[in-house]
Amino acid sequence: MVILTGKLIIEFLENLEQHIRQMRESLDIEKIEELIEIINNSENIFIMGAGRSGFVAKSFAMRLMHLGYSVYVVGETVTPKIKKQDLLIAISGSGETTSVLNIAMKAKSIVGSKIAVLTSNKNSSLAKLSDVVVLLKGKVKTEKDDKIARLAPLGTMFELTSMIFLDALVAELLSLRGLDEENLRERHAILE
Amino acid sequence: MVILTGKLIIEFLENLEQHIRQMRESLDIEKIEELIEIINNSENIFIMGAGRSGFVAKSFAMRLMHLGYSVYVVGETVTPKIKKQDLLIAISGSGETTSVLNIAMKAKSIVGSKIAVLTSNKNSSLAKLSDVVVLLKGKVKTEKDDKIARLAPLGTMFELTSMIFLDALVAELLSLRGLDEENLRERHAILE
Amino acid sequence: MVILTGKLIIEFLENLEQHIRQMRESLDIEKIEELIEIINNSENIFIMGAGRSGFVAKSFAMRLMHLGYSVYVVGETVTPKIKKQDLLIAISGSGETTSVLNIAMKAKSIVGSKIAVLTSNKNSSLAKLSDVVVLLKGKVKTEKDDKIARLAPLGTMFELTSMIFLDALVAELLSLRGLDEENLRERHAILE
Amino acid sequence: MVILTGKLIIEFLENLEQHIRQMRESLDIEKIEELIEIINNSENIFIMGAGRSGFVAKSFAMRLMHLGYSVYVVGETVTPKIKKQDLLIAISGSGETTSVLNIAMKAKSIVGSKIAVLTSNKNSSLAKLSDVVVLLKGKVKTEKDDKIARLAPLGTMFELTSMIFLDALVAELLSLRGLDEENLRERHAILE
Repeated sequence: MVILTGKLIIEFLENLEQHIRQMRESLDIEKIEELIEIINNSENIFIMGAGRSGFVAKSFAMRLMHLGYSVYVVGETVTPKIKKQDLLIAISGSGETTSVLNIAMKAKSIVGSKIAVLTSNKNSSLAKLSDVVVLLKGKVKTEKDDKIARLAPLGTMFELTSMIFLDALVAELLSLRGLDEENLRERHAILE
Repeated sequence: MVILTGKLIIEFLENLEQHIRQMRESLDIEKIEELIEIINNSENIFIMGAGRSGFVAKSFAMRLMHLGYSVYVVGETVTPKIKKQDLLIAISGSGETTSVLNIAMKAKSIVGSKIAVLTSNKNSSLAKLSDVVVLLKGKVKTEKDDKIARLAPLGTMFELTSMIFLDALVAELLSLRGLDEENLRERHAILE
Repeated sequence: MVILTGKLIIEFLENLEQHIRQMRESLDIEKIEELIEIINNSENIFIMGAGRSGFVAKSFAMRLMHLGYSVYVVGETVTPKIKKQDLLIAISGSGETTSVLNIAMKAKSIVGSKIAVLTSNKNSSLAKLSDVVVLLKGKVKTEKDDKIARLAPLGTMFELTSMIFLDALVAELLSLRGLDEENLRERHAILE
Repeated sequence: MVILTGKLIIEFLENLEQHIRQMRESLDIEKIEELIEIINNSENIFIMGAGRSGFVAKSFAMRLMHLGYSVYVVGETVTPKIKKQDLLIAISGSGETTSVLNIAMKAKSIVGSKIAVLTSNKNSSLAKLSDVVVLLKGKVKTEKDDKIARLAPLGTMFELTSMIFLDALVAELLSLRGLDEENLRERHAILE
């Protein structure tokens, strides 16, 4: 059998294009309004995720900082105590990631902070305790599961989808705050 | 003026779909073969990027670990000295990020390691010193620049494109190594 | 009242000297032998701690890498799944830090890995589930507690004591493995 | 030859006690006053170090946050652009660590920020460009170098000394700000 290099890359990209189109055509605008509102009405924003979802969380946190929000990543050095008027955003495809769930429960029960979650699983423990639940499709169920497992194994599709959704949300927040690229650049770290 | 929530999110997603389609239609298969070959012929793989490109770098590094490669992130705790037979992969849209460039120069000049770079800038200093240069379009120049700056400010488009390209490459590597999702799961951290 | 700059620094240093002397005079050599044995008989070593104890954990992990051990930090990018024949070392003054305890319980119950803990609290949950418990005094109880709280607030004394103890242990491991500084330097990252 | 377990640990601890005593007896109070003044007169404080000195830097940054300072770690997610009225604190035994030096030069030349350095090397490049230079002895030269290399290889003695000095400084700052342990606890992260 001849394996053609790039064949799977092309299939992956086609699959992702279709996935993004579906996300675009089924956007829940009311839910997005809720998310924007809870972000804008919180004093500080705390963000977290485990593994690759954690890197998505950090990418979003960095842009929120560029946008002028007071934002922290759970587990980083200068992250203070969360308070009642703060928002904790969790990113978890399964909505059951142990560490993320434990931290959200602590923020909810001890402090009474607001919680928002990006997840693929609307019945998950994280979804149940969150004030705002943004559902993002992970693996598309209309396709053969083994094909997807081969193209986008484990949480790949959810991680990409959250990264894309959150960068799209940044465009929205940029406009809502009346800012432009130059304002972001003014806050962008130069010491790196 | 009435601002419709979600309008920019939809524009962002349309723009990204177009961007991915262009990437798919203009894939440089020979370059991808070179990248796969240098990855597979290296003893250890070191990955780095600054800022949000750094999170993309880490997401890819984690998947390479799941695939069974010996891989390290520059700057993390257990990362050892790089050697001549190792590969350093840099992710930098501009190809001029100071810290990333300095580290690549050090690896090249002191150790003689192999270097690969993902960048938008084929004339950059990083591209010039690399053994394999994978070009990824950042901002699409056919569109009005200010529109893109508003939708995908700073390095957003490059960061998303690299994340997507590298996840597509993972599908290719998974197949080449004759592995499946279950093999990845066996190496996936459970302590998180 | 005239406040003399440096007065508290001097008190802090005197206090720490006394603390180290007490640690030295009450070393539990058998316990240290057990710790060295479990380290040397494990395939991979995983290390973790939260907050400032986490930085102590990482400092020790880096030296174990320099010494040639196969070592990972829980939560870092390339950290794989822990196995039965691996050792998880937890650093926690209280022995009750939620995330650290949860992770140790997971490693114990799901995988059956070996656990070692550095703690001030021999009756803690972490101590109870660990195969080797190294006790390190945190706040010295013979002194007035408010004085110590003023000089070394929160976990300061435990964090310093663990850092010092683990660096002392490195001297012991260096000698046991028949290595010298030059061998460490050969593994020390140059890309930083 | 019989190797006695713990012999090197005890030598290490004796050596460190002597080291701390020397530091205590030769404290440069004026320099400490300068350091406190520049910390208290800066708008934001940025902290950095590479490798194990980086973990010391983060430990100090966390305590400054607990003390109520506006503080960031260079390279972490939410760290913004440094400004002229901000202070950059570098920790580097050699005073020549490439990445740390490059970043300090950038902060100095592009932004004009204030720089303070903790180093063992008063003639180093970092010392030369800093507004405040705090000298901390690394390896004690009166002892046989090979003995020290065996007990405290590479930067161990400098890293421990900086950690200890900075924790002593925290006691001083705590008192100067009229705070107590309870105030620190109020800012201590609970989500971990």
